[in-house]
Amino acid sequence: MSDRTAEVGERPTHVLKGHGCGNDFVIVPDPHGQFDLDDKQVAKLCDRRFGIGGDGVLRVVPTRLCPEVLDQAAEAEWFMDYRNADGSKAQMCGNGIRVFARYLVDAGLAVPGRMAIATRGGVYHLVVPAEGDITVAMGMASQAPGTSSALVRVGDRSWPVHGVDCPNPHAVVFVDNLDDAGPLTDAPQVEPAEAFPEGVNVEFVVVHREGHASMRVHERGVGETLACGTGAVAVAWAASRLQESALPYVWQIDQPGGRVEVTEAADGSLSLCGPAVVVGSIEIRSDWWYEQLATPAQG
Amino acid sequence: MSDRTAEVGERPTHVLKGHGCGNDFVIVPDPHGQFDLDDKQVAKLCDRRFGIGGDGVLRVVPTRLCPEVLDQAAEAEWFMDYRNADGSKAQMCGNGIRVFARYLVDAGLAVPGRMAIATRGGVYHLVVPAEGDITVAMGMASQAPGTSSALVRVGDRSWPVHGVDCPNPHAVVFVDNLDDAGPLTDAPQVEPAEAFPEGVNVEFVVVHREGHASMRVHERGVGETLACGTGAVAVAWAASRLQESALPYVWQIDQPGGRVEVTEAADGSLSLCGPAVVVGSIEIRSDWWYEQLATPAQG
Repeated sequence: MSDRTAEVGERPTHVLKGHGCGNDFVIVPDPHGQFDLDDKQVAKLCDRRFGIGGDGVLRVVPTRLCPEVLDQAAEAEWFMDYRNADGSKAQMCGNGIRVFARYLVDAGLAVPGRMAIATRGGVYHLVVPAEGDITVAMGMASQAPGTSSALVRVGDRSWPVHGVDCPNPHAVVFVDNLDDAGPLTDAPQVEPAEAFPEGVNVEFVVVHREGHASMRVHERGVGETLACGTGAVAVAWAASRLQESALPYVWQIDQPGGRVEVTEAADGSLSLCGPAVVVGSIEIRSDWWYEQLATPAQG
Repeated sequence: MSDRTAEVGERPTHVLKGHGCGNDFVIVPDPHGQFDLDDKQVAKLCDRRFGIGGDGVLRVVPTRLCPEVLDQAAEAEWFMDYRNADGSKAQMCGNGIRVFARYLVDAGLAVPGRMAIATRGGVYHLVVPAEGDITVAMGMASQAPGTSSALVRVGDRSWPVHGVDCPNPHAVVFVDNLDDAGPLTDAPQVEPAEAFPEGVNVEFVVVHREGHASMRVHERGVGETLACGTGAVAVAWAASRLQESALPYVWQIDQPGGRVEVTEAADGSLSLCGPAVVVGSIEIRSDWWYEQLATPAQG
């Protein structure tokens, strides 16, 4: 590493790796706002074979240093600059924000307890104990309009949709067995397609008893994933109504990547509680940033 | 971390990540032979979402401390304890041994130059410059007996096989375009199957000119991979005979994960030269080793 002081545009060499329910991230501490990563740098960090590997990058940067979220600076000291693995900017990630909060506490950048974090989707409020699961306030959910007669179809089977705005769109279907959804290599067919004009995340759910369900999720534009924060909230919201659960309720939702708990308070506000794990810290070789990319096979 | 001295059976907390042509590894330095990793520990390290991520583990341990390779201790100071991502033990890995050697030099455990490394497949000899590509002596290749009339079939197309023992079995086929092999989600069909009783790695090759080819590879039991060391050697061996290259020759072989060079000396001994990259060093949180595994979704 160069011994001169890092400047804006430098490449980070100290990062961490963490995950929430198997949704994994490269954490980039940036207390001085030096690392305005371009798309290629994010993609290089997230590359699972040539780099560190992750579903995205969580850059940890003071809110007051970021013009795009400056209006949140009075309320939230740290901004979660969340980037997808291709470098594109995203608003918010329910699993990522738990990992972000765990890092802040572990690094001594925030004290355990209540915490506000700035995101491109606005300020989020969390409860972060010194160790253990982290709770994020997720706002309210509502029935998605115009979805009451929609169906999800896989092969020759179909199920009625419970449409939920969370506020992103979800199609929750209750099945007898999670295998009924098949391999989910393709997006499940939603009929009519116009019911969800912006596309939809589809959750397949088995209810074991009131307060406990298991799910698989197909995220729009991504494919089947190990866990989906808003998906788990949508599932609890729909299942509690099916079961006529009284408010407040708590539902345990098992996802392939791990268990979360969804609580709906008496006023209808929802919160999501789940694990956040920091696997370790990584010193990247500074020359790795300048490694020649592989020569792709041609022919 | 505990401050007591580590004992045999402890979990490593200092590891590194590296790759050779996109074939990636978790490097576990073990100078005192303390980390006799069981299958679950290897799988946890190699897990790409819950752990560090890699195709396998390279444990770096003194040969004299390992009964299974004690007969190599006089010739090779370090043993490459190579483990597949599921924890199973493997003999040798042509990409892994370059990464292993690069680590030894970078860590000051070996001086640049000629080097011998112990493996479960015997002692391998390398040339390791202070930086840059690394050369591994790969022995001799020969025509695989009983393969002269074999074919590889993909869909309704087929190509004659050039069978090569390297010494593991390879079926090299020359195609007009690497796309001719299709998506390679399933193993290519080899006819008759008896031609390769132990299964076979299949290479699809486009020759650009004498001394330069591109390849894709389907490895038996694995699927399509970004690179295969013995596969590149088999391709150069078969292509040089097709082109009637004079010995000694050098062929550049482009794989999806990067370029390697194969040299056949006048005596028929083959060597493989290619990149080895150490991405960074990782301090694993010791409590990560004891994290609860995810509750799998059931239903």
